[in-house]
Amino acid sequence: MNVPGFKGSAVAAGIKYASRLDLGLIVSERPALVAGVFTTNEVKAAPVLLDMERLGNDEPRKAGAIIVNSGNANACTGPQGLADAREMCELVAAALDFSPEEVLVASTGVIGAPMPMGRIRAAVPALAAGLHSHGLDEVSHAILTTDRCPKSAVRAAKIEGRLLTLGGIAKGAGMIGPRMGPRQATMLAFVFTDAEVDPMWWQGALNRATEASFNRIVIDGDTSTNDTVLAMANGMAANVPVSFPSVDATVLENALAELLQDLARQIVMDGEGATKHVTVTVCGARTTEDADRIARTIAGSPLVKTAFFGEDPNWGRILAAAGRAGVSLSPMHLSLNVNDTPIVRRGQGLGEEAEALAREAMRQGEFTVTLDLGLGRASAQILTCDLSVEYVRINADYRT
Amino acid sequence: MNVPGFKGSAVAAGIKYASRLDLGLIVSERPALVAGVFTTNEVKAAPVLLDMERLGNDEPRKAGAIIVNSGNANACTGPQGLADAREMCELVAAALDFSPEEVLVASTGVIGAPMPMGRIRAAVPALAAGLHSHGLDEVSHAILTTDRCPKSAVRAAKIEGRLLTLGGIAKGAGMIGPRMGPRQATMLAFVFTDAEVDPMWWQGALNRATEASFNRIVIDGDTSTNDTVLAMANGMAANVPVSFPSVDATVLENALAELLQDLARQIVMDGEGATKHVTVTVCGARTTEDADRIARTIAGSPLVKTAFFGEDPNWGRILAAAGRAGVSLSPMHLSLNVNDTPIVRRGQGLGEEAEALAREAMRQGEFTVTLDLGLGRASAQILTCDLSVEYVRINADYRT
Repeated sequence: MNVPGFKGSAVAAGIKYASRLDLGLIVSERPALVAGVFTTNEVKAAPVLLDMERLGNDEPRKAGAIIVNSGNANACTGPQGLADAREMCELVAAALDFSPEEVLVASTGVIGAPMPMGRIRAAVPALAAGLHSHGLDEVSHAILTTDRCPKSAVRAAKIEGRLLTLGGIAKGAGMIGPRMGPRQATMLAFVFTDAEVDPMWWQGALNRATEASFNRIVIDGDTSTNDTVLAMANGMAANVPVSFPSVDATVLENALAELLQDLARQIVMDGEGATKHVTVTVCGARTTEDADRIARTIAGSPLVKTAFFGEDPNWGRILAAAGRAGVSLSPMHLSLNVNDTPIVRRGQGLGEEAEALAREAMRQGEFTVTLDLGLGRASAQILTCDLSVEYVRINADYRT
Repeated sequence: MNVPGFKGSAVAAGIKYASRLDLGLIVSERPALVAGVFTTNEVKAAPVLLDMERLGNDEPRKAGAIIVNSGNANACTGPQGLADAREMCELVAAALDFSPEEVLVASTGVIGAPMPMGRIRAAVPALAAGLHSHGLDEVSHAILTTDRCPKSAVRAAKIEGRLLTLGGIAKGAGMIGPRMGPRQATMLAFVFTDAEVDPMWWQGALNRATEASFNRIVIDGDTSTNDTVLAMANGMAANVPVSFPSVDATVLENALAELLQDLARQIVMDGEGATKHVTVTVCGARTTEDADRIARTIAGSPLVKTAFFGEDPNWGRILAAAGRAGVSLSPMHLSLNVNDTPIVRRGQGLGEEAEALAREAMRQGEFTVTLDLGLGRASAQILTCDLSVEYVRINADYRT
């Protein structure tokens, strides 16, 4: 991936494992406006607390670099953890001649272990020396934990007759459970663009795009302490700053939303132990909130997820999950499809032949489940995966 | 189990499997006052709808018999399902010379399959003929689904100088996720007593005892469409009707609560695939609601439950689950114990030695996890189990 003005670098610092890229650095040639969204978990990791302080609550500030590590979340690490997060920024600032406030930090990995600062101090010089314009791909490897593959995406947006670039990298496979909120995310993702943007609009665009992407995926429903999305716009394209309302803003925001949806989808496709990828749509609801709540309850139900794993069109579990979502329902009006195969109409199953077709659809790696409540016009969609034997194995063994 | 005036019977009707007790009948010699609590799931099975109608919303009514089957939940079965539930009561009424309104019904098993009424019609005569005073034990077998063992308990209550008896049977191993509510339960349970009771007090006592027992267990968090608790008091002891406020009411209600707690505990001990049984206590909360919400979130977290399975004192996952419960927290004030071993103080881990002790405790089949929020004096407790490879296997294969 190559986005004008951005460089990356990664090294194996030995944070948790030997000989594995685990420390990354992202640098913009020019200070970039950074919009951020963070976990709404009450227990926030030190780098999240530091970034939130640095970006402030109002309009986005400028920053030149992000240092990011895997193998250690620097969460539940107390005052020392905050000091370590600060020092990580200072080390980068010293190496690159920035002020520490211009450096942001993100971490992912085990909660509660002290950050091995000796190894990070030793690694930063090589990290800074290794910066190059194709280095973002290396960073996309360095941020992985239980992920099976790196995640990146690129989009172009045509503004003032020129093609501007949006690039993004992300990680995430477990502890993935989105929460609604104006400044909230569900994993690590970094977005880079050479666009020049209006600060307030840029933060708003990131909020909305996050809501329509990372906030609409569920793997295990466990919201992390470290979820962070940082979107850097360095203005290298020297366009008129993109601001709302304008056609350019719409074009750029659409490209951003597509980029994040692409990354969000890659996260679900790499869900821990996942063998099935399922789009759960709830329609015919009275309100979007109702539809959203039911879609999330279905996507989070252990019984529904194990039925997905077993390729069993066990629609009773889906209806039962819908019924416990805290939304008033009319069971006799429920309809359910798997892909385009109807298996429930008026709250009742359509029999073995319909289920056989549905089972066939579920044998594929990807399918859709659509529940029509028959009550109104609102709808919501969640992208999720199954709960497999392998998920349990991965998470029973994670720290050992 | 022998409770004066109660008889039971069970037969193998072939509802789902051949040669397995799957149809039970409970009869009281004298019409008994029946208090009931039912699932709050919006999608309610036909027998739940029928029993709720028969028991009414006000004070408990009298009934003489309960017919109960496993293998088929009679849920999402539409008008035919309701007709079938009614017919099950009518068959019993005809065989025993009751009016159909005096008969209640409960079902558990697969959702969405039509009730095999031919087999039930054929089985009821033998069922009625087989009634005997030790037959409740047979019924406790006939109601099982994925349970590994039958569940029953007996308590005595001394009232007016005489010992009255409380007996109970229950089933449940999966789709166990309690919901708060005045008339709500989480599985099938039937309670029998020879006490004479005041109707309104009896319903209130059952509500409170359910809240302190079945409503405090979580296996997978999936609230069923069929949860039902029916408590029959037949007055054979001919005591002065127990009513509130009185010492007798306290004695009998305590015995009832103990009985239900015993049965609730047996359900968790038999949780699908469970290898660990964990009491999660949240204390130091501002309100009981806060404590309850956090305890339920911890007990329902896939990452916490898989760590239990892996005997991994991964306290970061517990704190992360607490942080996403929707309750305002002060991370620096969190303390955590496994049994009496402190592993977190002031939001930070106490190191490997403490975790080694905690790991030792987790190797046992049962242990406690206590999270102190350090914010107030309220507390709540949930009894739960781990999420094992076997849980996924059971539920991926349930219908096949």
